[in-house]
Amino acid sequence: MLGSTHGSLTTTSRPARVVACGERPGPAVHGMAASDRDVDVSGRPLHCDVPDLDRLFRPETVAVIGASETEGRPNTGITRRLVSWAERVGARLHPVHPTRTTVFGLPCHPSVHDLPEQIDLAVLLVGDPAPVLEELAVCKVRFAVVFASGFAETGPEGAAAQARLAATVRHSGTRLLGPNTNLNAFEHFRDDLDGPAIALITQSGHQGRPVFALQELGIRLSHWAPTGNEADLECADFISYFATRPEVGAIAAYVEGLKDGRSFLLAADRAARNRVPVVAVKVGRTETGARTAASHTGKLTGADDVVDAAMRQFGVIRVNGLDELQDTSALLARARPPRATGVAVYSISGGTGAHFADMATAAGLEIPPLSAAKQGELHQWVPEYLSVANPVDCGGHPVGDSRGRKIIDALLADPSIGVLVCPITGPFPPLSDKLAQDLVDAAEETDKLVCVIWGSPVGTEDAYRRTLLGSSRVATFRTFANCATALRAYFGHHRFTAGYRSPFDDAPRSLSPSARKAEALLRPGEQLSEHAAKQLLRAYGIRVPREQLVTSAAAAVRAAAQVGYPIVMKASGPQLAHKSELGLVKIGLTSASQVRDAYRELTEIARCEGLPLDGVLVCQLIERGVEMAVGMAHDALFGPTVAVGLGGVLVEVLDDATVRVPPFGEDQARAMLGELRGRALLDGVRGASPADVDALVETVLRVQRMAVELGDRIAELDINPLVVLGQGQGAVALDALAFCR
Amino acid sequence: MLGSTHGSLTTTSRPARVVACGERPGPAVHGMAASDRDVDVSGRPLHCDVPDLDRLFRPETVAVIGASETEGRPNTGITRRLVSWAERVGARLHPVHPTRTTVFGLPCHPSVHDLPEQIDLAVLLVGDPAPVLEELAVCKVRFAVVFASGFAETGPEGAAAQARLAATVRHSGTRLLGPNTNLNAFEHFRDDLDGPAIALITQSGHQGRPVFALQELGIRLSHWAPTGNEADLECADFISYFATRPEVGAIAAYVEGLKDGRSFLLAADRAARNRVPVVAVKVGRTETGARTAASHTGKLTGADDVVDAAMRQFGVIRVNGLDELQDTSALLARARPPRATGVAVYSISGGTGAHFADMATAAGLEIPPLSAAKQGELHQWVPEYLSVANPVDCGGHPVGDSRGRKIIDALLADPSIGVLVCPITGPFPPLSDKLAQDLVDAAEETDKLVCVIWGSPVGTEDAYRRTLLGSSRVATFRTFANCATALRAYFGHHRFTAGYRSPFDDAPRSLSPSARKAEALLRPGEQLSEHAAKQLLRAYGIRVPREQLVTSAAAAVRAAAQVGYPIVMKASGPQLAHKSELGLVKIGLTSASQVRDAYRELTEIARCEGLPLDGVLVCQLIERGVEMAVGMAHDALFGPTVAVGLGGVLVEVLDDATVRVPPFGEDQARAMLGELRGRALLDGVRGASPADVDALVETVLRVQRMAVELGDRIAELDINPLVVLGQGQGAVALDALAFCR
Repeated sequence: MLGSTHGSLTTTSRPARVVACGERPGPAVHGMAASDRDVDVSGRPLHCDVPDLDRLFRPETVAVIGASETEGRPNTGITRRLVSWAERVGARLHPVHPTRTTVFGLPCHPSVHDLPEQIDLAVLLVGDPAPVLEELAVCKVRFAVVFASGFAETGPEGAAAQARLAATVRHSGTRLLGPNTNLNAFEHFRDDLDGPAIALITQSGHQGRPVFALQELGIRLSHWAPTGNEADLECADFISYFATRPEVGAIAAYVEGLKDGRSFLLAADRAARNRVPVVAVKVGRTETGARTAASHTGKLTGADDVVDAAMRQFGVIRVNGLDELQDTSALLARARPPRATGVAVYSISGGTGAHFADMATAAGLEIPPLSAAKQGELHQWVPEYLSVANPVDCGGHPVGDSRGRKIIDALLADPSIGVLVCPITGPFPPLSDKLAQDLVDAAEETDKLVCVIWGSPVGTEDAYRRTLLGSSRVATFRTFANCATALRAYFGHHRFTAGYRSPFDDAPRSLSPSARKAEALLRPGEQLSEHAAKQLLRAYGIRVPREQLVTSAAAAVRAAAQVGYPIVMKASGPQLAHKSELGLVKIGLTSASQVRDAYRELTEIARCEGLPLDGVLVCQLIERGVEMAVGMAHDALFGPTVAVGLGGVLVEVLDDATVRVPPFGEDQARAMLGELRGRALLDGVRGASPADVDALVETVLRVQRMAVELGDRIAELDINPLVVLGQGQGAVALDALAFCR
Repeated sequence: MLGSTHGSLTTTSRPARVVACGERPGPAVHGMAASDRDVDVSGRPLHCDVPDLDRLFRPETVAVIGASETEGRPNTGITRRLVSWAERVGARLHPVHPTRTTVFGLPCHPSVHDLPEQIDLAVLLVGDPAPVLEELAVCKVRFAVVFASGFAETGPEGAAAQARLAATVRHSGTRLLGPNTNLNAFEHFRDDLDGPAIALITQSGHQGRPVFALQELGIRLSHWAPTGNEADLECADFISYFATRPEVGAIAAYVEGLKDGRSFLLAADRAARNRVPVVAVKVGRTETGARTAASHTGKLTGADDVVDAAMRQFGVIRVNGLDELQDTSALLARARPPRATGVAVYSISGGTGAHFADMATAAGLEIPPLSAAKQGELHQWVPEYLSVANPVDCGGHPVGDSRGRKIIDALLADPSIGVLVCPITGPFPPLSDKLAQDLVDAAEETDKLVCVIWGSPVGTEDAYRRTLLGSSRVATFRTFANCATALRAYFGHHRFTAGYRSPFDDAPRSLSPSARKAEALLRPGEQLSEHAAKQLLRAYGIRVPREQLVTSAAAAVRAAAQVGYPIVMKASGPQLAHKSELGLVKIGLTSASQVRDAYRELTEIARCEGLPLDGVLVCQLIERGVEMAVGMAHDALFGPTVAVGLGGVLVEVLDDATVRVPPFGEDQARAMLGELRGRALLDGVRGASPADVDALVETVLRVQRMAVELGDRIAELDINPLVVLGQGQGAVALDALAFCR
């Protein structure tokens, strides 16, 4: 850990990542130089490059390189499936093999150059795809899918071979899917299902199976992009493409690692602008997961807290399990926007209602008490002794007759209710069959969302299989938890996209005067002294105490008089950290003689410890405020990040900090504070007056500006403590630590 | 909130609960007075009363009071089901009805007194069960089951009626199940399933359905106790009874509220001693859940953090959803103790392995890397380019031939591995059918646990329905999350019970000399002054600063000289709180004149504010240490509780505290500290030396002793801050607040 006097906000939460070998993170651009594009001041793109993938998913001509019909060979099975798929979708398929004349009755061509027509999609089943890919690029084949594995997932050598594949297609007209991918894009999709579909992106075929199998439960799937190692086409490209496809209601993704943080953000931004939900499982919550994922498709998983923040910033809904991925993406694809934020819970058992309401409330859903009038209406059909306040417990019997449907309709008619949830924990056919049918019928006639939880672990019951799954209007779940998770995502998505304003629209395109001033202070590869780090802050308009750097006791006394007593004195040098522990800080000096003594003592300690000084800082003593910390650091995937948290010793002990990836607006900077457990400190506790939160937010935004402008040249910056004074009085950076790259 | 100078540890986490109307919480004893029994110093029992429930579940004679055969009446359906059930289990059933002569062909008796033989079980279907229950008690019917609702779940009037039912059977030979219960105990249990069974307890019939339906998936169920309102027999009685039934492998419970905290703890203790796992859903995580549950079966849900702590202390495994209840109790009922703590993850896809390993690690499972030798062995069958470090990715193909079984056996043979988990996300019959069969076969031949996750959302596949569910040795799950949750519970349960030592064995049975000293200080219904509260602590051997209470400036100066400069002076009075904010604390006084001035100032402020003082405290100034807080409070269910957390302002802001229900041992007191987010403060941060954790633990245990001995007479006690000095230097209670009941 890189140390600082007050502990490091950015490095306690994750190890500092410094890019090796002079490599500079920057935009990953396909097909054109960054300068041709709309980029921000750091050179990172501001819009995503949306590839036209129509012919990848619906090619008119397909070539299979390495086609086989010899029984027992893996390529034979693949060829057979491609032939059948091409027939089904009406594509012309051309086998390619050096020695065969026909494959499955189709004329076979000896090489790519011999193909009789322009090819939309070439599937490479060969062990070494590199030379073939070169030929395909020359022929301007639109899409090449490479099945071979043994690339980045195996280590540095494989990564280099993969980079060569990427280089082959770069600037060519050919786009590459894979290597290390499979046939999933060419599965048989059911075309008898209606409604908005799920488009699926996976970096592992097996992991996409359960979402694909949703078709057997009546959920429509439109695409499956198995991205494999992503040498060229990556997850973000598919998100961008799917975001404006009319048939796509939601994008479901299984992500092990991201190829490029910025392209992911831009794709998510595009989806958010188009109000298309993106639901993702992202492996890498733990070290075990991150390590294992890397060995699977060779991608960086990224620091998980940063990935998590980035997803939240751009509205990507992160879930943990594949079951949550299925249930949440299916709901979001199919349900219309909520008409109201309230959820009505209706059950034939008070226990079931109480239990679901408990879990739903814990998940952040609103279960509003129904009005007295509505409760009166419900009591026409529900015995008086049962509670209909919401949850509504009908006791069971009313379900069996005409009262059942009336209760449902009355709940759906309530203007405070946007969603009706009916948990049915077990089948009791005389009641549950009728209840299921009533719910399906009611769902047909309302524009509100009707959810049913079929809690039986068996799942072969008719009411479930036929009635509920047979309805495209009822959202059916198997567990309380997944229903609550999906509903939270549903309300969250619509709230997020309704208020969404893309931060890319406001991202700075040119260097600020601050950056020009600050640049002169950077010392590549070095740690800056506290004094220099504070000058950097001052360049960005972040307040620091009045202070002077002096190199003699006499100068210290003069400086103290100018700064104004009482003062603080600190040793300042390029290698100093943990100054307090070393006795290199003197607080509350009130006279010239104290200043002289302190000067001698500080320089003596530094001499004994062998720490070079650029001088001694004579600083204004800042009255008490709330100690916070604000910092920036580098993430391997996303580049510069900005964090804020509790300051002082608490940074180390409680790790109460939160992070954002630029660009983000003031709303996000403010939201960061709301995520801190110690947030109440800023509101004023024990009669303390509230802190100047606006000044803290402004400091976060100024650090963001620095991160965007100079982030590729600063490895780490920590302001700690940033003392936030009372309202209207600002915030002052008492100490700062900066490492240049 | 009751205030204190430094904020209240106990009241920030939950509202103070003071029992109204002079009611005193104490032991709930059935059939005998507390004095007859083995009780602790507070009069609470130390052993549970285990009812003999054999004849409830397997009666030889059954009476149905209110029997009917008139079509369309609810009682007719119930009577019919009971007649059929009695026939099946070989019980003699006697209908009772004032006017009928036969019911379903059985001779009907006009009243309870006319019954021809001693009755084991009477089922009351009448609207007003009270008079019948009186007759049954007189006849010494063993068990009465009351279906009628309209009791405690409806409010105070119903609660009173329910109390009358309880009084009717108290001290009689009759035990009462209900009211507000149902037929679940008399369901048809499959008797063709083998292995250890789940015994189910629910406070709501509908909520037990999914667990009951596990029988359709091949999981054995032995009992179902639908406890309803628990006027007499309660959840704890059934836990105690099931804990020593030989056929019971695990107890699954759906709990809305507990009737009595102590009896629940004693029952859980009995289960822990017998190593029988108790898995429970407990509603009441949120206010909504708590309120709704109360209106369902009329029980207190209890403060959720206290319930949660109590369950953890006694090894009860709390889960959220009914699906988790099913999966976890089924696993714990059937799986033998683990042979090793390592989990091997084996999959046909690297992505699946990475994803499950990520979730499992996050759940606290160990996924140990396999030895180089084991990896070498696996690579005989798995291609070199795939990772077999654990997770083991076989790539798919080896599953299809003889290699498949060899890989599984090699993993199960590894001594570091106790559990093999194979997630199969989708059926691919050529591979997954064989894989499922290999896993089933291997499970037959190992004493290690084999788990399979069948991730397909469809669930009608043969490999799942026939092969996996057909095996009683493979534990089959549907989601990664539920497998991880169940395995965490599995390892946790065996670790917990292996090291379990009942704290009831060491609970104090007689008053300590401390208690005798302390009793004199209590002032019923009043808040104690700081000085008196500290005397209470001193009586229990908890260190407080040297201090004297003085009532004149001159006495203050004399006291300061005795206490030793520098000193602290504080106003002391029975109604003081937030003294610092009011200016009623003076810190670091170093001279007699300062002391005189301070005395005048403090008394003047108190006079102006209208605050009566019992004097001014002249206290020793304690050097810096770690500020903690230790307190006791009252819980409506469990009585006195003990909490520890970060002290000072942090108590309010971060709410970093944890609670325990007495009795608990030193191990639990130490474990409490490990649960604090700010735990590192005690280890010494920034070069500070480690704090005297032993002294802090000792203080917690002394407060526990006070809670047990005087807890029913003290509403709340807060020591805040408790300054924990360096190792070996102890802990000092700088301030304390106490409210007597």
